[in-house]
Amino acid sequence: MHIDVLTLFPEVFPGPLGESVIGRAARRDLATVSAVDLRKWASDARGTVDDKPYGGGPGMLMMAEPLAAAVETLRKPETLVVLTSPRGEVFNQSLALELAKESHIVLICGHYEGVDQRAIDQLVDREISLGDFVLSSGVIPAMAICDAVIRLLPGVLGDDESSKGESHMDSLLEYPQYTRPPVFRGAQVPPVLLSGDHGKIEAFRREEMERITRERRPDLWEKYLSGNSRKGFEK
Amino acid sequence: MHIDVLTLFPEVFPGPLGESVIGRAARRDLATVSAVDLRKWASDARGTVDDKPYGGGPGMLMMAEPLAAAVETLRKPETLVVLTSPRGEVFNQSLALELAKESHIVLICGHYEGVDQRAIDQLVDREISLGDFVLSSGVIPAMAICDAVIRLLPGVLGDDESSKGESHMDSLLEYPQYTRPPVFRGAQVPPVLLSGDHGKIEAFRREEMERITRERRPDLWEKYLSGNSRKGFEK
Repeated sequence: MHIDVLTLFPEVFPGPLGESVIGRAARRDLATVSAVDLRKWASDARGTVDDKPYGGGPGMLMMAEPLAAAVETLRKPETLVVLTSPRGEVFNQSLALELAKESHIVLICGHYEGVDQRAIDQLVDREISLGDFVLSSGVIPAMAICDAVIRLLPGVLGDDESSKGESHMDSLLEYPQYTRPPVFRGAQVPPVLLSGDHGKIEAFRREEMERITRERRPDLWEKYLSGNSRKGFEK
Repeated sequence: MHIDVLTLFPEVFPGPLGESVIGRAARRDLATVSAVDLRKWASDARGTVDDKPYGGGPGMLMMAEPLAAAVETLRKPETLVVLTSPRGEVFNQSLALELAKESHIVLICGHYEGVDQRAIDQLVDREISLGDFVLSSGVIPAMAICDAVIRLLPGVLGDDESSKGESHMDSLLEYPQYTRPPVFRGAQVPPVLLSGDHGKIEAFRREEMERITRERRPDLWEKYLSGNSRKGFEK
């Protein structure tokens, strides 16, 4: 997979995407991310890519023409064009799994107050929002999308980092975990984890996942219950 | 406000937080972010801060002791300690507004498979999740939290960048926006925006916000309706 991130701040890439499993995936050519400077397609020599909104209002908008020229240069027949936008679908693990099936993504970072709607209508396949909060630009959402998608690609995670059992893969939150020392400032590791009894450990973890999900995220718990009952598994 | 980000990857900061309004806020000392290397408090000379989970399972956990030593060095009486974690409260604009009232935050980036639960129990005030997706580390969520919080601080946004009218501030999505040229590849700007009639423009934008929210985010639309009816404003 290759991702072209179209942005006004190409110099902050790869940033966190150069580290850890995502950096390793790039070095092994499993998935590469290029940051592409939108100003290459600016309307003038000063690099202008923004202008005032028609009808008034604060801030500046990204102009349609530079964006269109950039996307048309980068786009191939198989390309999916994604825009980070507070009005988009809310990003989640199923959406990451969908994007992981693509071979080439052009990921446009929203900047300023927004993007000329005609560019969105004519160029963008999907608008994705990271969540219900306001950020200064689409750079951080673009990084999050790249990270979540790339780690799902075959070969990116080692056997030891298996994506199985992680939060949101089966819609329950993770169980609590413990490592050495056995006693930390008076707090002990739950004895069952030291018992060596794999059946009991598994049951303990399952119960903790269910308890934590029920307590902290009733919305996920409801989804989990209805998913299981659809599969005929009564709770 | 000062934020200490405790991480295994201090070198990727400030990254996007060095640009745009957040970078400007730092240069004007309105809000500063320091990346602090957790390995300074490692258990050995090799910088070890992780160990295997008790009870088995893939991956490594962040050990309690280095984290505790780091937090205790950085923490002042007024400090709020936050951990990025897939099990946390889901980040949103109200949570950003709450955090914007703090004067000092220690923001721990989760890494590896997770953090020893005893360190969470003893040190962490709030666990925050960026959303229902899996990332390689807490670095990107930490950046998102810093960005969303800092831009809410007094003086950070200029008059022209006012946070009023932005998506999620009043729980409706933004209206579509347009800038020059008036015709882009056959697509016209909606004539009302060129009319100069501010009342009509306002009404058009309001209708579009409501339409887009209803179509794209029925969950936000429900919240908006119930919020308005609580205020006695019938829809």
